[in-house]
Amino acid sequence: MTEQAQHRVVIVGAGFGGRYAARALRKAGARVTVLNGTNHHVFEPLIYQVATGVLSPGEVATPVREFFRGQRNTEVLLGWVTDIDVEGRTVTAAAPDGVPYQVPYDTLILAAGTTGSYFGNDRFAEHAPGLKSIDDAVELRARIMNAFEMAELETDPAAAERWLTFVIVGAGPTGVELAGQIAEIAHRTLPGEYRRIDPAKARIVLVDAVDRVLPTFSPESSAAAAKRLRKIGVEVRLGARVVDVDATGVELVTGTGTDRLTAMTKIWSAGVSAAPLARRLAEATGAGTDRAGRIKVEPDLTLPGHPEIFVVGDVMSLGGLPGVAQVSIQGGTYAGRTIRDRLAGKPAGKPFHYFDKGNIATVSRFSAVADLRGLRLSGLAGWLLWLGVHWAYLPKGRNRASALVRWATAFLGRSRPERAVTSQQIRARTALRQTAAAEAPAAEAVPAGPPA
Amino acid sequence: MTEQAQHRVVIVGAGFGGRYAARALRKAGARVTVLNGTNHHVFEPLIYQVATGVLSPGEVATPVREFFRGQRNTEVLLGWVTDIDVEGRTVTAAAPDGVPYQVPYDTLILAAGTTGSYFGNDRFAEHAPGLKSIDDAVELRARIMNAFEMAELETDPAAAERWLTFVIVGAGPTGVELAGQIAEIAHRTLPGEYRRIDPAKARIVLVDAVDRVLPTFSPESSAAAAKRLRKIGVEVRLGARVVDVDATGVELVTGTGTDRLTAMTKIWSAGVSAAPLARRLAEATGAGTDRAGRIKVEPDLTLPGHPEIFVVGDVMSLGGLPGVAQVSIQGGTYAGRTIRDRLAGKPAGKPFHYFDKGNIATVSRFSAVADLRGLRLSGLAGWLLWLGVHWAYLPKGRNRASALVRWATAFLGRSRPERAVTSQQIRARTALRQTAAAEAPAAEAVPAGPPA
Repeated sequence: MTEQAQHRVVIVGAGFGGRYAARALRKAGARVTVLNGTNHHVFEPLIYQVATGVLSPGEVATPVREFFRGQRNTEVLLGWVTDIDVEGRTVTAAAPDGVPYQVPYDTLILAAGTTGSYFGNDRFAEHAPGLKSIDDAVELRARIMNAFEMAELETDPAAAERWLTFVIVGAGPTGVELAGQIAEIAHRTLPGEYRRIDPAKARIVLVDAVDRVLPTFSPESSAAAAKRLRKIGVEVRLGARVVDVDATGVELVTGTGTDRLTAMTKIWSAGVSAAPLARRLAEATGAGTDRAGRIKVEPDLTLPGHPEIFVVGDVMSLGGLPGVAQVSIQGGTYAGRTIRDRLAGKPAGKPFHYFDKGNIATVSRFSAVADLRGLRLSGLAGWLLWLGVHWAYLPKGRNRASALVRWATAFLGRSRPERAVTSQQIRARTALRQTAAAEAPAAEAVPAGPPA
Repeated sequence: MTEQAQHRVVIVGAGFGGRYAARALRKAGARVTVLNGTNHHVFEPLIYQVATGVLSPGEVATPVREFFRGQRNTEVLLGWVTDIDVEGRTVTAAAPDGVPYQVPYDTLILAAGTTGSYFGNDRFAEHAPGLKSIDDAVELRARIMNAFEMAELETDPAAAERWLTFVIVGAGPTGVELAGQIAEIAHRTLPGEYRRIDPAKARIVLVDAVDRVLPTFSPESSAAAAKRLRKIGVEVRLGARVVDVDATGVELVTGTGTDRLTAMTKIWSAGVSAAPLARRLAEATGAGTDRAGRIKVEPDLTLPGHPEIFVVGDVMSLGGLPGVAQVSIQGGTYAGRTIRDRLAGKPAGKPFHYFDKGNIATVSRFSAVADLRGLRLSGLAGWLLWLGVHWAYLPKGRNRASALVRWATAFLGRSRPERAVTSQQIRARTALRQTAAAEAPAAEAVPAGPPA
């Protein structure tokens, strides 16, 4: 290898940002190391379909190694990055068993992504999990499916009603898509399978403090989405701020006062904050962070005074760019190419320019809203666009093939291919329900029993 | 409903036995209740493919409710049956949250299946899990995939070798199929994806105390399977009894003395025993049990002196019938029809007769062995038969369609569609590795780090 080939680029995170950055370095005179906390890249735009039983985990989670099998200058290491030594140019990662190891770098690309944010109310997390990882998706799926099972077993009507009420906090794309899918599970998939309850009577409530759904979309698209949501039986509660979440419901503050929604299943899609690592790196380099903890970067996506550190994707703060896949993809590609050109001795290129391809969100089967450059689509037209775009972006042919089978099953048919809930997930619910039993008088009557 | 329609049949377990029993009661003048500890029926013959990343959980785990959606006299309740009151004719089940509930019966069908048996050495379980449930499959898949990740991270060659050694205890169909699939993962799927280790160097050892693999098959098929296993790189150690299992290996007693296999990943497929409920029921009714804890039944699959209690499937002991899917399917159907005829006032029919369709086991892609009535197939012919039979028995068209996509991916292609390991599974490994670190001097040098 040449002298230059010894230059070592370390990429923290294998989401869209890290994946495309590594891809852009495939012909670079550098040794590339990709560090990721799990063995897979998550195709986040479709993870809500894992949470609602349409797709299997493997269909949205591709092994990181598969992407780089043929990219010989790139290695993948499984590790959760816990620290970055900016002076020593070394990252510290924890192996799956918690044992730490170090990886030195010449150039670093931080693409660590975000975690759900409860705006300081972390106690909400237990009762209203978010949706970022495959773990989250499998856990949510278990909560949704178990809720109907528990309702079928309840002798107390009030308790059954609690189990049949689903509250989604946050009306962004994920919240809208989850609400729409839960409505379809309740109204299309499950009816006929229960003898004591009517799943179609399930109440799905989408709550947000703002005055419209999909606030990052055009007002027209927001209105179209809200109309469609109501049509498929989703209650849309806007201008309602969630001030508390407990085992049996959520507390709201509305323009007219306070209100409580009683529901066993709560889902949090109200906000995200940058990975904790971001704040650590910002402190170490003196870089600023925004309200979401994202690191403020220079126009070339590096940190002030640290041209050897790039920050891309959801963990990057630049000119108010949104935390969407396209910003990560384009930012990662830009960082990778910039490093490649530097190593090739080329002069610095243009600053990063984000090309906004537009927004798209599914509301239900055959219905989506899309704001493209100068073009707005809703209903079936939007949905067909959604289908094409997501199919095209899905990694690997086999994921596409099996995803098509699943979509036909769920959207043409009415069943959900991935409804199996593991005992591990069932057990995870136990503690929660017991809290609920303690908090809800109606449930106290039931004697405590042996663990399932 | 007629007086007779009030007759209540309770079926414990929704495996093959319970599922086919309920199906046979679809036109019976009875109210049928199916109790199952999870929300899904597991297609056990293919669960090894979930453990090895070929199929998704949903493709082998069909919601029990889906089978009985249109069968109006049948209800499904999620519950883990903890006790049976033979005098009071009532079963007690635990809801997912552990809260118990009672279900009365006029006729009971016990189809509770089996659990892995360590022949009294339950401490083996932590180090060498078995493969009965979706939980087991997902856990095994995580251990197999993580082993290669850990090997890539190891700096100590001896430790890496431990991670690259897989020991499967028990050379029955499940053991043979797992060994074959792990060999294909190591030799076909993973090479090219690692930079520091060569996955193809992985050592896969299949151990059994008996003198041939697939002991329930013909000697010719056993020989063909063993030959194929060795051809694809599986070490077959026969006549070797496992006397101890710990975090870093297994102890063997062979004809010539003792031996130790050092391996981080151990899988137990050496034996099963009837669900604990079986012994309880046997004691309550005075019925006998065999060495595996299975209940000895009358020729009509009822318990002596208890014509209202049927026992079918793996939990039933009758004339040495094996614990295979066909015995469960035929026994369940027989019990269901017997009850239907009784309620219709028909005289008792013939005793249960098992029609042995034969045995089939896959060794690797394009190679299986099959012993049919008067016909023996091996190699590609056997594999095509396996493909046809399993495809035909897979429930629901969509499972068949997506399974075909997965099989094409894994057997024509070389990748595994379902390799994603959740953090939950990764964390599950932590404790184990730390035990290993304590036991294995080589690993002690590594300082303990923050949890992944």
